[in-house]
Amino acid sequence: MSEFSLIYTHFKHATTRHPSTVLGIGDDCAISHIPPNSQLVSCVDTLVAGRHFVHETDSHAIAYKAVAVNLSDLASMGATPYAILVGLSLPKAMANDGFCKAFAHGLADACTPFGVELIGGDTTGSPVLTISVTALGFVPSNQAITRQGACVGDVVCVSGTVGLASLALHGILDDLNGDGHANRPPDSLPHDLRQAMQYPAPQVALGGRLIGFASSMIDISDGLGQDLGHILRASGVGVVIDLDAIPSHALLDALPHAQKWQHQINGGDDYQLCFTMPSAKLDLFKIQNPDMPIYPIGQIVADKGLVFLHNKKEVDLLVKGWEHF
Amino acid sequence: MSEFSLIYTHFKHATTRHPSTVLGIGDDCAISHIPPNSQLVSCVDTLVAGRHFVHETDSHAIAYKAVAVNLSDLASMGATPYAILVGLSLPKAMANDGFCKAFAHGLADACTPFGVELIGGDTTGSPVLTISVTALGFVPSNQAITRQGACVGDVVCVSGTVGLASLALHGILDDLNGDGHANRPPDSLPHDLRQAMQYPAPQVALGGRLIGFASSMIDISDGLGQDLGHILRASGVGVVIDLDAIPSHALLDALPHAQKWQHQINGGDDYQLCFTMPSAKLDLFKIQNPDMPIYPIGQIVADKGLVFLHNKKEVDLLVKGWEHF
Repeated sequence: MSEFSLIYTHFKHATTRHPSTVLGIGDDCAISHIPPNSQLVSCVDTLVAGRHFVHETDSHAIAYKAVAVNLSDLASMGATPYAILVGLSLPKAMANDGFCKAFAHGLADACTPFGVELIGGDTTGSPVLTISVTALGFVPSNQAITRQGACVGDVVCVSGTVGLASLALHGILDDLNGDGHANRPPDSLPHDLRQAMQYPAPQVALGGRLIGFASSMIDISDGLGQDLGHILRASGVGVVIDLDAIPSHALLDALPHAQKWQHQINGGDDYQLCFTMPSAKLDLFKIQNPDMPIYPIGQIVADKGLVFLHNKKEVDLLVKGWEHF
Repeated sequence: MSEFSLIYTHFKHATTRHPSTVLGIGDDCAISHIPPNSQLVSCVDTLVAGRHFVHETDSHAIAYKAVAVNLSDLASMGATPYAILVGLSLPKAMANDGFCKAFAHGLADACTPFGVELIGGDTTGSPVLTISVTALGFVPSNQAITRQGACVGDVVCVSGTVGLASLALHGILDDLNGDGHANRPPDSLPHDLRQAMQYPAPQVALGGRLIGFASSMIDISDGLGQDLGHILRASGVGVVIDLDAIPSHALLDALPHAQKWQHQINGGDDYQLCFTMPSAKLDLFKIQNPDMPIYPIGQIVADKGLVFLHNKKEVDLLVKGWEHF
């Protein structure tokens, strides 16, 4: 908890207080009350400057995304986020009021919409800006949605457009394996691309509603193909995806098919949910939740592997990471 | 949870399974069952190469300490540790089997004695080795021991020797503000010094036993003076410390008084517990827990501030960090 005051000074006025917090920041540890009939859900994700975001990213966006990617992991289990703990390693040049204020506001802007409280933090000096966020949430006991459970015949759905974050990254980097510096500032990107890359919206409300409906779920961080692959492997099944059914965007539609599909299937960093559901449940879910974004894009099949269709004909696509399975 | 397999491959055979774990590593999040009448206790601490350990430290010791300092934070609340989540940022040169195997064994050697399970992890590339550990534990509801609660007349105790870790660090570094490289390898240190610096033992058993006895508690990470100062500030009291009563070591006793006291009061990195207790309770505790290390070193007084005695006469010592209060 040491030396976090620089961030917390700016954050404490903005942060939510969650009724589960018995003791927040300020002692050696935080203490939390777990609601009855709930289980604790936890995850950690680390973002490193020049690897997970270009060095030119402003600190508000960095902090926002570090939280958002973790809330997305909780959402993918159907969990309701409750709190975060932040380990921040900060170069000396950034240990100033301006950086920390914007960073704290970024944390707050990611937490506040979901009632998430900052309950723990540690700031240290480092040559490289590194943010490690642990997120905690609750799920009704024994009802979490895992990667295992997709059944033959289930419909495969996503919660929204995939591929935009990847298109954005390609828009500011000439060489993805370069030094982590952008060739063009993120601000120069069209609004939708910048939002997709820097301010992904964790699908927390949808994730929670899918309890009792979805048979398996994951969030799309490494790319739709690779992440759906995790479901397939855990569930022992395969999939047929209709490329034409994947929610798209005018900027993706303007590209040649092969490029568009690369962004959609192998792009990553979208933080949409990908889940499976029996078709009868899908109909019921839509009736009960007309406000929830849900896009069927394919079907679970017995033959293992990923098959892609365009105009109802099979298309050969290389799925990043699939060779590992 | 992505890309943690390099570590987990080596760790999964060594790690404890905790009965509270419903779902461990391998999905987007872990799921945990919280025991009845318990509260969740959580903390995060980040270690950066060259800042929190010299670059010459072997990966077993790095991993061990990253866990131990967090278990020490849990112990200082009286909590029983249950699980850790690890965010590891790793330079390319270290992403090899040798480093990861030793690192995993270091994690295991810190976790196993306390039945702690690794339930979440994330490994990323980075120019600088950085380890962020989140530790989770349980405490009987509303019985955690905080920094607030020290009363005038309470005895101040520590759980063991302080100052050795600081002496060790000075033994291998000529310049504490240097580049984080040791002038002499840690292996060249006398055994007790190396142990104190690299393998501190979190006082988990004692912390738990102190529930119902200690009126306040903290673990000594920044130095006895500064950490005890947190208790004083939170409790609105002062203290008189008998320097001669602080548990020492032959290597500390061999130093001139002023140097020895510097290590003991301002040294830090000891991870002993410092706590306060009414004297009647102290007598009872000793009778009921003859096996527990507990050393009275002073008394809480109404006059705010830190007073140090040697041969019953006041000694003027500058306490690091105290000027901030």
